[in-house]
Amino acid sequence: MRDIKIGLIGLGTVGTGVAKTLTHNHELLCQRLGFGISIKKVAVANLNKKREVEFAEGVLTSDIDAVINDPEIEIIVELVGGIEPAKSITLKALKAGKHVVTANKALLAEQGREIFDAAQSCGRDLYFEGAVGGGIPIIKTLREALVANNFAFVYGIMNGTCNYILTQMSENGTNFEATLKAAMELGYAEADPALDIDGIDAAHKLAIIASLAYGVAPDMSAIHIEGIRGLDVSDIQFASELGYKVKLLCMAIGRDDKVEVRVQPTLIPHGYLLAKVDDVFNAFYVKGDIVGPSMYYGRGAGMLPTASAVVSDICDVARNINAGVAGRIPHLGYRKDQAERKRYMPIEEIVTNYYLRLNVQDKPGVMARITGILGERNISILSMIQKSGNIDGFVPIVMLTHEAKEADLQAALDEMAALDAIKSRPVLLRVEDRNLKEQHS
Amino acid sequence: MRDIKIGLIGLGTVGTGVAKTLTHNHELLCQRLGFGISIKKVAVANLNKKREVEFAEGVLTSDIDAVINDPEIEIIVELVGGIEPAKSITLKALKAGKHVVTANKALLAEQGREIFDAAQSCGRDLYFEGAVGGGIPIIKTLREALVANNFAFVYGIMNGTCNYILTQMSENGTNFEATLKAAMELGYAEADPALDIDGIDAAHKLAIIASLAYGVAPDMSAIHIEGIRGLDVSDIQFASELGYKVKLLCMAIGRDDKVEVRVQPTLIPHGYLLAKVDDVFNAFYVKGDIVGPSMYYGRGAGMLPTASAVVSDICDVARNINAGVAGRIPHLGYRKDQAERKRYMPIEEIVTNYYLRLNVQDKPGVMARITGILGERNISILSMIQKSGNIDGFVPIVMLTHEAKEADLQAALDEMAALDAIKSRPVLLRVEDRNLKEQHS
Repeated sequence: MRDIKIGLIGLGTVGTGVAKTLTHNHELLCQRLGFGISIKKVAVANLNKKREVEFAEGVLTSDIDAVINDPEIEIIVELVGGIEPAKSITLKALKAGKHVVTANKALLAEQGREIFDAAQSCGRDLYFEGAVGGGIPIIKTLREALVANNFAFVYGIMNGTCNYILTQMSENGTNFEATLKAAMELGYAEADPALDIDGIDAAHKLAIIASLAYGVAPDMSAIHIEGIRGLDVSDIQFASELGYKVKLLCMAIGRDDKVEVRVQPTLIPHGYLLAKVDDVFNAFYVKGDIVGPSMYYGRGAGMLPTASAVVSDICDVARNINAGVAGRIPHLGYRKDQAERKRYMPIEEIVTNYYLRLNVQDKPGVMARITGILGERNISILSMIQKSGNIDGFVPIVMLTHEAKEADLQAALDEMAALDAIKSRPVLLRVEDRNLKEQHS
Repeated sequence: MRDIKIGLIGLGTVGTGVAKTLTHNHELLCQRLGFGISIKKVAVANLNKKREVEFAEGVLTSDIDAVINDPEIEIIVELVGGIEPAKSITLKALKAGKHVVTANKALLAEQGREIFDAAQSCGRDLYFEGAVGGGIPIIKTLREALVANNFAFVYGIMNGTCNYILTQMSENGTNFEATLKAAMELGYAEADPALDIDGIDAAHKLAIIASLAYGVAPDMSAIHIEGIRGLDVSDIQFASELGYKVKLLCMAIGRDDKVEVRVQPTLIPHGYLLAKVDDVFNAFYVKGDIVGPSMYYGRGAGMLPTASAVVSDICDVARNINAGVAGRIPHLGYRKDQAERKRYMPIEEIVTNYYLRLNVQDKPGVMARITGILGERNISILSMIQKSGNIDGFVPIVMLTHEAKEADLQAALDEMAALDAIKSRPVLLRVEDRNLKEQHS
């Protein structure tokens, strides 16, 4: 039986998961593939560190080039993460004629154009299922299974740490800081949680998803990013009273010749399936013109779920090698000369529903002033909560608006913030309602 | 730009959807594939019928062989349905050197071995995503995306008609017959609903899923099938009181060297994601040893959702043709010489939790007799509902059991049915609880 040899660069959490999976399910993979896959070399920074997996003598090396240049190795699995040295490793591997499998979302989101161009000009496969959604096969689904569809939108809960924190805040009524601290103690948040809670990790994933769905190049600068840092638990509670859950939602929406891309804490109606995705789980809610609404749910991170995706990629590339083909499917789902005809939409132009919370002085005329500011910009109110009782003369007022333009909302907030009768700039969250309705129709 | 020519056999609902999709999204497909796909011929029974799609002169024909034998046509899309003439058409197409795409679940479930053997010996691709789950890409997911996994189980809500009827019965408290009648009037059930409500359609799909997951040959005779015909609405209501929804659940479960396959109305805890899949929607809940729990949700039937799956298959095969390969992936996910090492488990051997409803005489000693019958067979009671008040001296008693063996339950029911104190054989439903818990851990 043929044996296809691979080299791993990096043996952290995901690398260890990949090695475990290939070892533990080796026989199963042979039964399914008709050939074997074996790890010939693994490059690690520290040869003496104790590892969860055992390798035969000579497999572990500290020499990355020895892995890339091994003539028997046909696939390089880059699991270093971050931009450098991952970028140099990937480019060197492609130039050495190797196919590459990676789970590096930061690299693909920030330098994707250069990486994919290199893969294209070298005529090599570059697979990256592990970069988005952990074990959920969203890349294969968008690129292959739903190939017949124009996408109305792809929505995702793409960051498990944020979803865990929001679920805990919602269920226990704890504030953001305390919930984050507890999540860190349980290992659900990193020691430096900024990449997660500020929405950067989610945006990396969204950049890749938008590319696949709409044929645009990944572009972090096009994404409007708001994280969950400092989100007030009272907003989660008001949202709940109004019938919504708050999720860090990643949105790629097709708007004629434009693509709208946003990562924002967003209100989603309680009854919708996406609102029921809790804890560290991820999900993608995809609407295509042919398939209609569909959802994909699972573990979005972790040693083994991500390994499931990476090994699936290794098998796909190995099947191509075994069949003697490469480039069977364009890396980003579109032929390069055909793609990039859509442009990203500036945030000011988006139109959606909004949630507003204002702390206003409890005295006559204030509400008239506020509703006047909204009315002048054609922003109409859908529903409102005002509780009795005030703190230091201020009361919270919560409003949901009908659809309005972001630029108009921001201008209204600027004007409100300047009023003495309002205590600081109002809290603004987006509400996603309209696009999710179809799941019940 | 290269143009790959296909022939459709059959232009019913799905065939029309495929033609519409290929026409309407032709440019999109060219952008993604780098080549075109066009329908050269379509075989129909009646040339004069009015159609929703228009074809150029000479495309429609009543001569099936003219489609199969057209030397320019490389892919035959069989959308006739049923066993014959679909089987002969498929075999003839394979022997004529054509690749085949089909959505024919009955044919693959009942005669799959012969069909797949023929595809194998002809060295042709045979794709069938449209046969299971409508637009949900469950075939590709099991065969490719989750290739690294041993499957603990695959659960599915695979029949939209049944799920619609059960949802309506649950929400409105209507009985089975009235709900079925309303579903027929709305077009959610066929004029002859037997295939759906008796669980045959769901079992066809399960036979294919079990094959893909476990490498066994599709075998309808191995599946224990109970439909929803005559399901009593009171059981849905009692289940709800106990915290469960009733779904027609299709189950393929790996049990060491055996595979357990069942289609049964099943109680699922309210809080679980699978219990929230309502109306005509389908979903698959898959647990793998590497990926953990995952779920795939969407429209399980209909013109366009099924067309999304069929066109995805056409594109996959066309990509193989364009790359000059065939047989890149084994039809049923395992190399034929490696598969079929597991056996199907007889229904008597299954172990699960049960729901029992008995109509018992309202007099002393009866409960002692019943619990005695259960106790003798080591069937222990987890919880019980007995309402006050009786009808003609009989009262309903509902019980949930701990895990027990099906053979023991059936023997206990036989003994109970013979008692004068019990009014007819008790109602027995299965409860699925244990295997779904992981989604919350």
